[in-house]
Amino acid sequence: MTLRSRAYNELFASARTDGKLTLTNRLVVLAILASVAVAIVGTERAFASENRSAILWAEFGFGVLFLAEYCARLWAVAERPGPESDWAKRSEWARSFFALIDLVVVVITLIPFILAGAPILRLLRLFRLAALLKFGKFSMALKALGSAIVDRRYDLYVTGALALVLLLGGATALYWAEGKVQPEAFGSIPRAMWWSIITLTTVGYGDVSPVTPLGKVLAALVAMGGIGLVAMPTGIIAAAFSDAMQAYREEEARGKDGAMP
Amino acid sequence: MTLRSRAYNELFASARTDGKLTLTNRLVVLAILASVAVAIVGTERAFASENRSAILWAEFGFGVLFLAEYCARLWAVAERPGPESDWAKRSEWARSFFALIDLVVVVITLIPFILAGAPILRLLRLFRLAALLKFGKFSMALKALGSAIVDRRYDLYVTGALALVLLLGGATALYWAEGKVQPEAFGSIPRAMWWSIITLTTVGYGDVSPVTPLGKVLAALVAMGGIGLVAMPTGIIAAAFSDAMQAYREEEARGKDGAMP
Amino acid sequence: MTLRSRAYNELFASARTDGKLTLTNRLVVLAILASVAVAIVGTERAFASENRSAILWAEFGFGVLFLAEYCARLWAVAERPGPESDWAKRSEWARSFFALIDLVVVVITLIPFILAGAPILRLLRLFRLAALLKFGKFSMALKALGSAIVDRRYDLYVTGALALVLLLGGATALYWAEGKVQPEAFGSIPRAMWWSIITLTTVGYGDVSPVTPLGKVLAALVAMGGIGLVAMPTGIIAAAFSDAMQAYREEEARGKDGAMP
Amino acid sequence: MTLRSRAYNELFASARTDGKLTLTNRLVVLAILASVAVAIVGTERAFASENRSAILWAEFGFGVLFLAEYCARLWAVAERPGPESDWAKRSEWARSFFALIDLVVVVITLIPFILAGAPILRLLRLFRLAALLKFGKFSMALKALGSAIVDRRYDLYVTGALALVLLLGGATALYWAEGKVQPEAFGSIPRAMWWSIITLTTVGYGDVSPVTPLGKVLAALVAMGGIGLVAMPTGIIAAAFSDAMQAYREEEARGKDGAMP
Repeated sequence: MTLRSRAYNELFASARTDGKLTLTNRLVVLAILASVAVAIVGTERAFASENRSAILWAEFGFGVLFLAEYCARLWAVAERPGPESDWAKRSEWARSFFALIDLVVVVITLIPFILAGAPILRLLRLFRLAALLKFGKFSMALKALGSAIVDRRYDLYVTGALALVLLLGGATALYWAEGKVQPEAFGSIPRAMWWSIITLTTVGYGDVSPVTPLGKVLAALVAMGGIGLVAMPTGIIAAAFSDAMQAYREEEARGKDGAMP
Repeated sequence: MTLRSRAYNELFASARTDGKLTLTNRLVVLAILASVAVAIVGTERAFASENRSAILWAEFGFGVLFLAEYCARLWAVAERPGPESDWAKRSEWARSFFALIDLVVVVITLIPFILAGAPILRLLRLFRLAALLKFGKFSMALKALGSAIVDRRYDLYVTGALALVLLLGGATALYWAEGKVQPEAFGSIPRAMWWSIITLTTVGYGDVSPVTPLGKVLAALVAMGGIGLVAMPTGIIAAAFSDAMQAYREEEARGKDGAMP
Repeated sequence: MTLRSRAYNELFASARTDGKLTLTNRLVVLAILASVAVAIVGTERAFASENRSAILWAEFGFGVLFLAEYCARLWAVAERPGPESDWAKRSEWARSFFALIDLVVVVITLIPFILAGAPILRLLRLFRLAALLKFGKFSMALKALGSAIVDRRYDLYVTGALALVLLLGGATALYWAEGKVQPEAFGSIPRAMWWSIITLTTVGYGDVSPVTPLGKVLAALVAMGGIGLVAMPTGIIAAAFSDAMQAYREEEARGKDGAMP
Repeated sequence: MTLRSRAYNELFASARTDGKLTLTNRLVVLAILASVAVAIVGTERAFASENRSAILWAEFGFGVLFLAEYCARLWAVAERPGPESDWAKRSEWARSFFALIDLVVVVITLIPFILAGAPILRLLRLFRLAALLKFGKFSMALKALGSAIVDRRYDLYVTGALALVLLLGGATALYWAEGKVQPEAFGSIPRAMWWSIITLTTVGYGDVSPVTPLGKVLAALVAMGGIGLVAMPTGIIAAAFSDAMQAYREEEARGKDGAMP
């Protein structure tokens, strides 16, 4: 087994039959998470100005690491099975979705001019983690989530439409009851919708709340009637996802036990 | 195929065997949603005064569109199968529930005197969307929701009654514990019920909350004991709805596969 | 059929084979609900002082009505099947739990001295409604709820104990992190438990919340980890109740269809 | 039956075949709960300074009780079945996990110098209750909870990862929209994450909330889209736990009924 062949197996986890993450994969995942964490805490002005040089060095280190990994992949991908020439395989890989993300991450990290101006861009590194979702179990779980949503789309349309009508109806009721008393918070339906959404999701910041008796009665009715409705789409998706995962597990268990179900 | 026959198929989606929305239907849905959106943002004073003429033109446009659609339907409904004369069919359709809603929407939109005074009336347009609920899957989903509620009415009575007793009991407890200290918020049971409802639905605005140690202990007990109770009716309806939809889907799948289940 | 026999059937719904509420039962239920509503709004000082005489008359009317119903029941209960004498049956009924509640309600309503001093006592009327729970479907639904709780008591012990440990652990963590900074809110573990309960039930009034970075990190961890735990007992009871009701309905349906399931 | 043998049965509930708590066990549980309660209320300065001597005496009493129990167990454990000598059994027990916890609790309670300085340490007594979890039903329920989490780890990874992305995405969006206007609350992504976590768990203290229209729109979208996602891991664990307990109960019932299911 050549060095390049071993590198290919290390870097491209999907190349391995067991579908597990290799040591290199795990280190890269850690590096991505660390670089995202640095990008996040780097937005805190006090921390950033105190640790300016440490952050710069860390960013430089991540950039070199990601660049090295990108080059190593470009070199090793020639081991991919297939009749094409090495460079054809490389060109094909370089134009793939996940390779382009990798390239964007390298560029974002290494161009120092972007460093100061747009820290949010650096959070794009998180998308690199999406590449992990190709692995067996994760990809199955995501597919289960996706198909759960597609399967129950009519349930979601109906409960979603009822929830929307309730959000709008609640906002209109409070606009009517409190619009004159609290024009800042309920002076128009779009303003009242902020109250309506924050109430029906049960967040309830308390920055806006009805003060008149009529407004309180209406708000209480909206809160009692509507909270269930807003929670229903979630419950539907959760149940469908859970069932789909369970069905998969049972199928897998049956597959392991033998031929006959 | 005559023009009127084609118009009938376009305008009356229920006339088509596949039960899907036609292009015209979709455009009307978009127009309704857009007109509702205009009515909503038009309640925002700052926006309304700046864009007075644009809103007026939009309202006029929607009015003409809805009027044109109403007239086109009135003309095309003569194609409806049946032995009656064209005008008998038209008269029957014009007196139907959904046609009356359409007429009300046209009138509300076109009478400019209503325009300034009662923006809430314009939200009635949303009810036009209810006509969509006649379509196959949606109508089935709504029926499933309705029958789920009817089927489980005793579950709902019992949990609803327990929730009501808890709301009332919590309000009475806090009225007793905090009525003297915070007369504005807990000085009577109806006032304390505002606290009780906002707490047990977990909204928790924070505009009223107990301040005495006794009040806090009682509120903590009410919160821990009662949140589940208030959430139970929702959970029951959600589960029943989900089961009914699932049963329908399985039946449908069986129907497609062949005669034998 | 004598008058007394008809009165017995009207007043004692459980005497009827179909187990439905009679017209008289329904009127009494309405009177109870109305008298509770009067007792509730009567705690609102402004309303009570304005409508003093109306409330007094209403209270007097309810008292007379409840007294009349009590006497009518006492008279009619002699029709109850059994070999005992009329007065033995009356004495037995008068000492029953629900008859004692009725008597207490009559006494509370009619003694005018209690009227001014203890409005909360009047809410005891609500307990009269408990007598309704003897009816078929309701009694079954309540039993299902009770047996659901008994069946899953170990599930509830374990999740309840974990929730308690989390409540206590969260309170201790915030007492440690914020006790010095906000002694009023987090200066002792019992004080911090108010925060802990209001946070983990997701009520979140906002009257107390951490202000130090360490306190916020700990609070965020407690919130994310613990909300599920506190919601679990509810979910367990709701699921068990729902299953028990479903099983009952299926059994009932099977019973109606015939002998074979 | 000797005194030591009876003491063994009383003190070591696991020695009994029915797996129930003995009277002594129950008393010890009460003493532990009481000592934890004293430790908790003892952190309240006002209460502690007023009841200094009562707390000291209570602490001393608990210490003596726990010491006596420890010694009694050490003495009685010699009855444990097995060929080893009495002291070998004692030494083995004394080095067991739960015996070490007992010893730590005795030491913490009796050393008076720890009394004043570190009240939090005294909450460690709660861990003594963990010893109860060895009993049949509890241990089964805990195992069911543990295996529910392990079984559904991929469901949890996927929903947890999506929830994390949403938390981070929401924080980034509000940092971008409100960072300039409210630098204290949204001036960096770590600060905005406090808002993000408190909103998506629906706690909603209201200490930080968006004030700009753009911030409110983004927050509303995050709230509506994300609440379900954050609730999903909980729902998954709750359902899995409930199913595992139900499967256990059915198995147990089948075992009792006889051989055939």
